[in-house]
Amino acid sequence: MKKRVLFKELADYREQKVSVSGWVHRIRELGAISFVLLRDRSGIMQLVFQGKVDFSLESVIRVAGEVKVNEKAPGGYEVQAGETEVIAVAMPDLPFPVNQDPENIGIDSVLDNRIMSLRNPKILDIFRLQSAVVRYFQEYMRSQDFTEIKTSKLIGSGTEGGTGLFEVNYFDTKVFLAQSPQFYKQAMIASGLERVFEVGAAYRAEKHDTPRHLNEYVSLDVEMAYIDSEQDLMDLECGILEAIFEGVSKNEARILESYGASVPDPDSVKLIPRISHEEAKGIIGKKGGKKVFEINPEGERLICEWAGEEHGIPAVFITAFPRKKRPFYAYPDGQKTLSFDLVFRGLEITTGGRRINDYRMMTETLPRFGLTEAGLGGYLDIFKYGCPPHGGFAIGLERITQKILGLGNVKEASLFPRDRKRTTP
Amino acid sequence: MKKRVLFKELADYREQKVSVSGWVHRIRELGAISFVLLRDRSGIMQLVFQGKVDFSLESVIRVAGEVKVNEKAPGGYEVQAGETEVIAVAMPDLPFPVNQDPENIGIDSVLDNRIMSLRNPKILDIFRLQSAVVRYFQEYMRSQDFTEIKTSKLIGSGTEGGTGLFEVNYFDTKVFLAQSPQFYKQAMIASGLERVFEVGAAYRAEKHDTPRHLNEYVSLDVEMAYIDSEQDLMDLECGILEAIFEGVSKNEARILESYGASVPDPDSVKLIPRISHEEAKGIIGKKGGKKVFEINPEGERLICEWAGEEHGIPAVFITAFPRKKRPFYAYPDGQKTLSFDLVFRGLEITTGGRRINDYRMMTETLPRFGLTEAGLGGYLDIFKYGCPPHGGFAIGLERITQKILGLGNVKEASLFPRDRKRTTP
Repeated sequence: MKKRVLFKELADYREQKVSVSGWVHRIRELGAISFVLLRDRSGIMQLVFQGKVDFSLESVIRVAGEVKVNEKAPGGYEVQAGETEVIAVAMPDLPFPVNQDPENIGIDSVLDNRIMSLRNPKILDIFRLQSAVVRYFQEYMRSQDFTEIKTSKLIGSGTEGGTGLFEVNYFDTKVFLAQSPQFYKQAMIASGLERVFEVGAAYRAEKHDTPRHLNEYVSLDVEMAYIDSEQDLMDLECGILEAIFEGVSKNEARILESYGASVPDPDSVKLIPRISHEEAKGIIGKKGGKKVFEINPEGERLICEWAGEEHGIPAVFITAFPRKKRPFYAYPDGQKTLSFDLVFRGLEITTGGRRINDYRMMTETLPRFGLTEAGLGGYLDIFKYGCPPHGGFAIGLERITQKILGLGNVKEASLFPRDRKRTTP
Repeated sequence: MKKRVLFKELADYREQKVSVSGWVHRIRELGAISFVLLRDRSGIMQLVFQGKVDFSLESVIRVAGEVKVNEKAPGGYEVQAGETEVIAVAMPDLPFPVNQDPENIGIDSVLDNRIMSLRNPKILDIFRLQSAVVRYFQEYMRSQDFTEIKTSKLIGSGTEGGTGLFEVNYFDTKVFLAQSPQFYKQAMIASGLERVFEVGAAYRAEKHDTPRHLNEYVSLDVEMAYIDSEQDLMDLECGILEAIFEGVSKNEARILESYGASVPDPDSVKLIPRISHEEAKGIIGKKGGKKVFEINPEGERLICEWAGEEHGIPAVFITAFPRKKRPFYAYPDGQKTLSFDLVFRGLEITTGGRRINDYRMMTETLPRFGLTEAGLGGYLDIFKYGCPPHGGFAIGLERITQKILGLGNVKEASLFPRDRKRTTP
């Protein structure tokens, strides 16, 4: 048996005999010959058979054949098929039209038939791109001397006061699924690592089922000590975005193109404006023609539109959120906080800010939020025993994927999304 | 304010004025002068103060000073301290002796005071090494054309038949925490990615509380399609181990040394013997002087001892496990399976094998295990519609960390371990 050759390697085997394997993507029988498109992990190749073929769509076949130049074939080569073996038969009742453009298929059908819809090359590309985003994120963090951590997702109480948590039956007690690794990130920077990141699951037991929400998502979490202000954190996030946009535009151009998408010029990331929550409301009000009290999804869209027009990139850091809109650990600045969101292409993809690091400030803050030191377990030990100024943020992996590709619904950017009603597959 | 200089950068600032920051690790007051050890993320530096100092252990300080050569100081340099600012005061009632050798401290104290014990440089090094292991794993997988995936940890039913699962209250229904991403890995290789890996949490609701078990752990998961046999999987794992051992020995030598540890020569990984479960029992029986019916922890110790003596590396792939010892999806070979464990330094760190990929074989297998197609949700669609030969394995991150450093208990290799009784911090 010849070594398997992939679609992307065909050019190296011109006029040579090879063995190829993959899924039968499309069959076109023309009588004397049949064209078959064969899908492998590197792309889709054209096979030419004499006469009709006797395998079904999505079956896995192995074909011995010869590589021929054909300008009309994908990639410029095709394989004249010889001996063919069906490695795995696909039943004919395909529950999802794998080889169709998913544009024409509703999201419910895509998600209900997830095991099969992921075979669609365009849908699968979402996750190729997502894995690249994770990689660029990790590589950038490591280049900046950050250490990757893996923290428990089973916690005794919530970081944000106990609402919105999923409960887990843990032997004879109850624990909760973590909404974020907030306490643990802080514990780890105070442990002496100073700079940490985590790529991990986060859970929100929120009942709303919208195109913006997932009940389980992947959080790209960052925490950094010895910052001078929250500006350092936004600078760091700009570095991350530059690295992601650079990597994606350089290495994932094919995927961007198939979605008609593009990422902002990496050099434009430094132009992202940093404006206060108050200013943002003013700008949105002006653009929308009515007074704004809360920044809602429509407001996020408008502010990004404004930033695109005024600053050349459809993204805004909104800073100085009021205290009552932020968790207890946000560093106060009068009635505001040293915090920020990043809104990108009309969607909040990051929440972050400086955290309270002073023990006394923390103990004075707790009662304002109805919290007690005892209720937070050992959390306050982080601050009681010497914690430097620090802060951090989290980027929602599905959300940044969605916004890079221009997907309509964040669930499309989750392999196996969990929402109010969806717990399978 | 001068830019902060780290311990590892002192040599570049010889005879220059610098600003350093960190945690007060140790104070030695000698009357006229005081020596202070200051801990930052890169190491521990010596500061020299005139007279006594007025800050407490673990406080965070910022010191302006001049870098001087001192052969007796750690790294060969010390800082003559000038203006000093206490950035964050540490209360004096430290619950854990941060600057002591953890060898002399019991594991319960280490874990009960986890927020503080992680400040101990030697304990923290465990997680520096662990993050490096994750990095070498990821880099190797990417070099082999594997795509990283992130799958849901909330599942409708278990991969191994429903026992040992933690139950989650999910809105109006119940779901479970995944024991492994098994189904999802298989779905993704069948989706066309062909080669996938995941670094994610796995949950086992097992009641035993031993030095080998965690109820939540990090699994380095791998799945690969188009394999010829399970030998390909062991070859792949050898490549991973070589990359990890190579990276660790090259870049983490300081940590290995502080633990009196070493990793096997990367070139010796290919010498790991592959012996059947039957043979392994024979060898253990011979070494232990009594007939062996089950390979227990003592047996795992003995077989690694044997491999070290006979093959030059204390690791063994045990293959051909009986069907009744493996899950339903293990590929059968008569009454055996095409499966393997890797035992390293006396501990099983990997379970893997070829999986059933043929739909008919799968449907015939289910009843033997008391399972039904309907009970497995959409799992069988993976196979019903064309799934190539494949297999995979998982490496326990905490276990491999434990065995690289020679830790007595796997819980030491988990930042915030979860066991029968431990749910905080």
